Amino acid sequence: MKIKLGKKNCLYPMPAVLVGVKIAGRPNFITIAHVGIMDLSTISISVKKEHYSRVGIEKAGVFSVNIPSEELVKEVDFCGMVSGERTDKSTMFDVVDGDATGAPLISRCPLSMECRVLDMLTFSDHDVFIGGIVETYCDEGVLAEGEVDVSKLRPLLFFMDSRGYYGVGGRIADAWSVGEELIGGEGG
Amino acid sequence: MKIKLGKKNCLYPMPAVLVGVKIAGRPNFITIAHVGIMDLSTISISVKKEHYSRVGIEKAGVFSVNIPSEELVKEVDFCGMVSGERTDKSTMFDVVDGDATGAPLISRCPLSMECRVLDMLTFSDHDVFIGGIVETYCDEGVLAEGEVDVSKLRPLLFFMDSRGYYGVGGRIADAWSVGEELIGGEGG
Repeated sequence: MKIKLGKKNCLYPMPAVLVGVKIAGRPNFITIAHVGIMDLSTISISVKKEHYSRVGIEKAGVFSVNIPSEELVKEVDFCGMVSGERTDKSTMFDVVDGDATGAPLISRCPLSMECRVLDMLTFSDHDVFIGGIVETYCDEGVLAEGEVDVSKLRPLLFFMDSRGYYGVGGRIADAWSVGEELIGGEGG
Repeated sequence: MKIKLGKKNCLYPMPAVLVGVKIAGRPNFITIAHVGIMDLSTISISVKKEHYSRVGIEKAGVFSVNIPSEELVKEVDFCGMVSGERTDKSTMFDVVDGDATGAPLISRCPLSMECRVLDMLTFSDHDVFIGGIVETYCDEGVLAEGEVDVSKLRPLLFFMDSRGYYGVGGRIADAWSVGEELIGGEGG
């Protein structure tokens, strides 16, 4: 027996990322977990209409998506609570400008993507920026045999109902593999 | 020192969900981890252009998003590997039609959202359906004090580079809370 919860969004957990944009020449950072994957090199970030970064991203036309590791959880939470309109967050992190877009990349984040705004979708409370990834930067330390290793990256997950950040847990199974048993079963 | 990875999409892990749609009257299910949150009750799913479900969703104008628990990992992987065009997946799961849309909801998934297609965005390899959540259904067993409890839900996370499914790990910190220390620091 299922309970109805109304139009409740339960598409969690989502990765909590730090989105960077220069506003009036100064880097600003906002925490966003309402993100999405659109196509191979295209992602989305959903920004509340009233947020300082929203206008900044629309004006700049570029932004960065920085994947923090678990040890940055205080900074992640802080950047989601405090508006750049009132608080200067530009000195919180060592920043390098992206080569292609100039979007501010956070050195302490092991992974950063610089993105160009391809489109903006407008909803009642949020504007969603569709970003084309222009270049991705990565610490060598989170790679294993040339691929990003989630156990080294240790990204933060956000779960709305529990109002909490979580780590990534153990590996459950191999993709494009564990389901093969059922293919045999179906085909047999 | 950062390494450049090109236009690599590193926005992982993402929740692996089972998307349901009726095609020619028969329920079909596809695994999708390229999802997103747009607005409070609006989500996105990215479907490869060649997939059987893509046309099905466009025609039906409705779909379900079912959140599987860890024990469904074989079925999740299977539904991502095998096309409904060649294999009948309609009897894999006990299914209930959503009250509002008729989209097929998987009883074994502790959480399901029935969605109406609001828009479709076209990219080079994928079409992205923007879905308005019409109703959400939940097993009582995954609730704690009326909220979804991630430790009871035990959703599956997908990480592309490792080609694997992962569980949700331990709670790292409280959101809208752990960052308060830094507010003191900034303001002081």
